[in-house]
Amino acid sequence: MAKNIVSRTQDYPQWYLDVIKAAELADYSPVRGCMVIRPAGYALWEAIQRDLDRRFKETGHVNAYFPLLIPVSFLEREAQHVEGFAMECAVVTHSSLEKDETGHLKARSELPEPLVIRPTSETLFGHMYAQWVQSYRDLPVLINQWANVMRWEMRTRLFLRTAEFLWQEGHTAHETAQEAQEETLRMLGVYASFAEDFLAVPVIQGRKTESEKFPGADTTYAIEAMMQDRKALQAGTSHNLGQNFARAFDVKFLGRDNQLQHCWTTSWGVSTRLIGALIMAHSDDEGLVLPPRVAPTLAAIVPIFKTDDEKEKVLAYCRELAGALCGAERLAAAEKRDAGRELLTIFTDEAACQKVVLDMREGRAVEKHYHWEQRGVPFRLEVGPRDVDKSAFVLKTRFDGSKTFHEKSCASPDWLREQADQVQARMLERARTFREENTVVVESYDEMKAALAQGGFVRCWFREDPEVEARIKEETKATVRVIPFEQPGGTGKCVVTGRETSEQAIFALAY
Amino acid sequence: MAKNIVSRTQDYPQWYLDVIKAAELADYSPVRGCMVIRPAGYALWEAIQRDLDRRFKETGHVNAYFPLLIPVSFLEREAQHVEGFAMECAVVTHSSLEKDETGHLKARSELPEPLVIRPTSETLFGHMYAQWVQSYRDLPVLINQWANVMRWEMRTRLFLRTAEFLWQEGHTAHETAQEAQEETLRMLGVYASFAEDFLAVPVIQGRKTESEKFPGADTTYAIEAMMQDRKALQAGTSHNLGQNFARAFDVKFLGRDNQLQHCWTTSWGVSTRLIGALIMAHSDDEGLVLPPRVAPTLAAIVPIFKTDDEKEKVLAYCRELAGALCGAERLAAAEKRDAGRELLTIFTDEAACQKVVLDMREGRAVEKHYHWEQRGVPFRLEVGPRDVDKSAFVLKTRFDGSKTFHEKSCASPDWLREQADQVQARMLERARTFREENTVVVESYDEMKAALAQGGFVRCWFREDPEVEARIKEETKATVRVIPFEQPGGTGKCVVTGRETSEQAIFALAY
Repeated sequence: MAKNIVSRTQDYPQWYLDVIKAAELADYSPVRGCMVIRPAGYALWEAIQRDLDRRFKETGHVNAYFPLLIPVSFLEREAQHVEGFAMECAVVTHSSLEKDETGHLKARSELPEPLVIRPTSETLFGHMYAQWVQSYRDLPVLINQWANVMRWEMRTRLFLRTAEFLWQEGHTAHETAQEAQEETLRMLGVYASFAEDFLAVPVIQGRKTESEKFPGADTTYAIEAMMQDRKALQAGTSHNLGQNFARAFDVKFLGRDNQLQHCWTTSWGVSTRLIGALIMAHSDDEGLVLPPRVAPTLAAIVPIFKTDDEKEKVLAYCRELAGALCGAERLAAAEKRDAGRELLTIFTDEAACQKVVLDMREGRAVEKHYHWEQRGVPFRLEVGPRDVDKSAFVLKTRFDGSKTFHEKSCASPDWLREQADQVQARMLERARTFREENTVVVESYDEMKAALAQGGFVRCWFREDPEVEARIKEETKATVRVIPFEQPGGTGKCVVTGRETSEQAIFALAY
Repeated sequence: MAKNIVSRTQDYPQWYLDVIKAAELADYSPVRGCMVIRPAGYALWEAIQRDLDRRFKETGHVNAYFPLLIPVSFLEREAQHVEGFAMECAVVTHSSLEKDETGHLKARSELPEPLVIRPTSETLFGHMYAQWVQSYRDLPVLINQWANVMRWEMRTRLFLRTAEFLWQEGHTAHETAQEAQEETLRMLGVYASFAEDFLAVPVIQGRKTESEKFPGADTTYAIEAMMQDRKALQAGTSHNLGQNFARAFDVKFLGRDNQLQHCWTTSWGVSTRLIGALIMAHSDDEGLVLPPRVAPTLAAIVPIFKTDDEKEKVLAYCRELAGALCGAERLAAAEKRDAGRELLTIFTDEAACQKVVLDMREGRAVEKHYHWEQRGVPFRLEVGPRDVDKSAFVLKTRFDGSKTFHEKSCASPDWLREQADQVQARMLERARTFREENTVVVESYDEMKAALAQGGFVRCWFREDPEVEARIKEETKATVRVIPFEQPGGTGKCVVTGRETSEQAIFALAY
């Protein structure tokens, strides 16, 4: 079997692309920097959406859909905002095409005002909230949207940084500064639990420095994760926008005090970049590794046989095994739907869209193993003629490569769920241990530089200062990832300037 | 209570907009022809997505995501296709903005080739399928995407025709012409059952004439529905694309005969226009009317009281009623989540995201009635102090305005589901009766003209001919909506030309 995935130590960036390609998650498209998310990759996004959307609705949010295009005059209204986004906007200038002399299409019907494809939608939400909100009784407004956005990035990388990407953006409006701050932190907490419970990616919650905050925010908070190359990846952000956008778009309400006043707003988002985080946090040199909760296919049953007699015997046994794992009714439904197909897909959880696959394709067993391994399927159940005789099966666990033997009688939906829960917990634990092992506390700038050269997170006393951050970035390429909420207490001396500070920061190279 | 909805007979187009406004389904946005889908409207789209997506997956399809932007050179490759869409494309020509002398933003960094915002994605799918498909073993490819698309329409109307809209587009590739044809009809069938079972909108399935088909298709099929103003609305289309796009994008595979050959492809889609259909098929002069399966809020419980004593007594009773309808566990979960809120939202079906609301707000009962009525909530349960004494409640059914009295002891999840199923069936039946009553069979062109002037569907023998269709359209504004699959058999004389034909067509004015 040709090795189609380079190892992480040999070439980490290439390994990342190889894993994506082998698992058929995404492809580059003919438009520079835009990707095609293939079905296997999109199923991960659907799983992420399903779980996050439930968490949003549980915290009282509703979904809506705002337009793709934004008038440029809207961007102009918030000074920081326009500085942050103007340089990378896709601009729509015309509303039709015509053939030129050579028969090729060119733009025609120039628009009175150029429009940009939304890089983010604070401005449009601001504009509409100004119309919807009149009184404190109309507050809070708690709206989220799932949408595509576009930022014309120069250097792109599948999932991590693409010109177009999918995301969700929550936009809320509140009566008081305190409520807005509570919402900002609540949603950061939702992201943090989601990342840890669902993606098995441990994250550090904290505040961004002024130089790293969202253009137009008062304060930006983020969750930061460590990838296997020990770089940081910002996995989600939550912004307290103060009254900045409410002022720019005149979002006012009559308060309980009978005074007209501006709302306090927040915004928060995560994107398809989470799929990049998922890949880089867990996968190995054999390909994709998925945490059980995220995996669209939880387990693949692979029958192993040589002769026709063996085939018949093993397949019949594998069907029984599938029925034991998923329930007889679900097996029957699958057999009806997939009659005549070589892959039998049996749901284990319709709501979560999770399934077990029985792989009855012809072909060498080793090729099937690679097939499921590269696609990150958490469990592979291997069954050969001797396993049938012993009324047993082999369970291969993707994330640690372990092989264990089990009696067929133990197979049940509960057993499968328990295996999944155990692996889910161990994957989070492994990622957490990896992060801890690659985090150092330093006490001087020299130590910091040495540590950053090694990779990983560097934690130290730091007195926030944009100029100092710029200098560190220039000298080490590292940035403050967050000022973590968890602080040791007390004060210390900034490792760069020696000034007294009450805060430690985490520095790292980042995606 | 001021009447904020004009009647259908007085001004049908204004009635439609009033219903949307009163139910807070959508708003126009600052970009001409683009709409904001508000939470109440988006919840309808989510319900549609949920139900359709399940049907797509049951028929073996998977979701993916393709890029928003398409190089203009792609559009050029299929001659009919470019003719159909070039006139209404939003064109991206630049990739950043800069301030001009006056401080305003203008486009800069012109792109080497203009890009259009997808009006539909056959070209991109064709391009990618050419890379993914090598052999007949790679077929069929059955991919759907949920996405936004843009067509720069001149005359827009909320949901029915907007520059940007949301839709799904299925794109499949097959080994044989027959398989592609089967897929085309299978998906039309999926749309038809979805429209009837879920939206309670009866539809006629049939083929479009050459003049009405999709630009680039061999044949287009559609489902057509009748609105209350007796106009037709095309609610979904399914296209057999033959080998047209496979040739244009060189999608080839090595067949079982070891010959390299082009695939046979299909595409099919429905859009947020379905929400327009839903509104116009069922709503009345009081506002939105939703079929129970679509309704995010299935029932509202409205306590009626004057004194504090009454309030306490009635509210306690309403909680019991809510518990009886939704189950005690769900009520307990809702009371925990919504503690302190005036609206208690209890799920009746988490997977379908349906709920019952207990409306504990202060305010006049009549205002609350209007509130739920205008939002199309299928059932309202009214409870006053005397109902409590009688251990009863009043059930107000939105779609027919009926009021019935029930013993509290009959309230249960099954009872509620049964009420919902009954109303769902009766709404479909009512819409079907309306359509039948407004469909006439004509035997001459004069009869046709007279019938079309009255409105409704006109059925007649018709020999397909683009020139004749153009003449009819000019003289009556009507078009052939479909050549229905259901035909009387035998032959007849075309009502316009007198030529022998084996097909009857349905003519109507259309949205």
